[in-house]
Amino acid sequence: MESKGIVLWLTGLSGSGKTTIAKGLERKLKGYGYLVEVLDGDVIRTNLSKGLGFSREDRDINIRRIGFVANLLSRNGVVVIVAAITPYRAARDELRKTTENFIEVYVNAPLEVCEARDIKGLYAMARAGEIRAFTRIDDPYEEPHNPDIVCYTSIESIKQSIAKVIAELERLNHITKTPYQQSEESKTLDVNAL
Amino acid sequence: MESKGIVLWLTGLSGSGKTTIAKGLERKLKGYGYLVEVLDGDVIRTNLSKGLGFSREDRDINIRRIGFVANLLSRNGVVVIVAAITPYRAARDELRKTTENFIEVYVNAPLEVCEARDIKGLYAMARAGEIRAFTRIDDPYEEPHNPDIVCYTSIESIKQSIAKVIAELERLNHITKTPYQQSEESKTLDVNAL
Repeated sequence: MESKGIVLWLTGLSGSGKTTIAKGLERKLKGYGYLVEVLDGDVIRTNLSKGLGFSREDRDINIRRIGFVANLLSRNGVVVIVAAITPYRAARDELRKTTENFIEVYVNAPLEVCEARDIKGLYAMARAGEIRAFTRIDDPYEEPHNPDIVCYTSIESIKQSIAKVIAELERLNHITKTPYQQSEESKTLDVNAL
Repeated sequence: MESKGIVLWLTGLSGSGKTTIAKGLERKLKGYGYLVEVLDGDVIRTNLSKGLGFSREDRDINIRRIGFVANLLSRNGVVVIVAAITPYRAARDELRKTTENFIEVYVNAPLEVCEARDIKGLYAMARAGEIRAFTRIDDPYEEPHNPDIVCYTSIESIKQSIAKVIAELERLNHITKTPYQQSEESKTLDVNAL
């Protein structure tokens, strides 16, 4: 019951690799015995923000809602991994202030790379004017000034990016690779103390 | 990590006592060592559903959002207590289908009693036509047919209502009064087995 949650907030362009990294981290951290939830921007829009658009105001409301849910989960010991573009610095700074153990992960890939990937075909639609207010096409992305972790997904493999995040979480003492083993050890200590 | 969450869904008229019972249950269950979150209809409207009104459609969206968050929490072992009018039977039946360990608690008090209490002054405003679509004034409340628990707050004291809910949760094996003590016992058994 004492376990402290964390909120890993993956910010970056569409197609930068946020969701892929989030899923990889989820697998890894569940393997270590942690409770993990991925809050994916697209899924959250369906479940919590249907009707909201992509104006700055609507984006801010959407991000605050994700932050609210992330907080509820993390204060109950869950490792929350958010994958959402979160293009505005002010919104991310607000999250940092209102969220305990907030870790900003900048999933950094050049626009050209993200656009060449175009997994969901959204860049093509944005270029054709079929979608408006698309981040980095006709809407801004404000790069993080001091992210806690940066993953360069155009240079690193997904595996390397995931390993980098895990290593940093360990270094910051947010996770240990074997929480279960540790609690076994402390149980042994209790026994000796009897 | 094995602990199973539950979702206690308190439905009933405005002023029936949902929030008071929710807070009492929260105190009690936290005392037993459970992770508990209260999702109060009014708070949720502020944080997840600003802009939604009180049409049947908007009410349904709001309830689904609360259900979504309740599910996220309960599958991570949290006891979730929802206090929200939830006037439509179809919405509650949908929740029962989509939510594991869903327990419907009907906080039942006659309209006259709720209106006489009128803690937030809302009934007066509804009667004066200053609020529209207010449950049981000019909007329906569909009573539960088969609630898991009924609290008659015009007859029982709040303490009695809370005790009734706790007793039923124990009977259904959803909670034990001393989860911590139990784990101490199992630790002792481990020691003996060495």
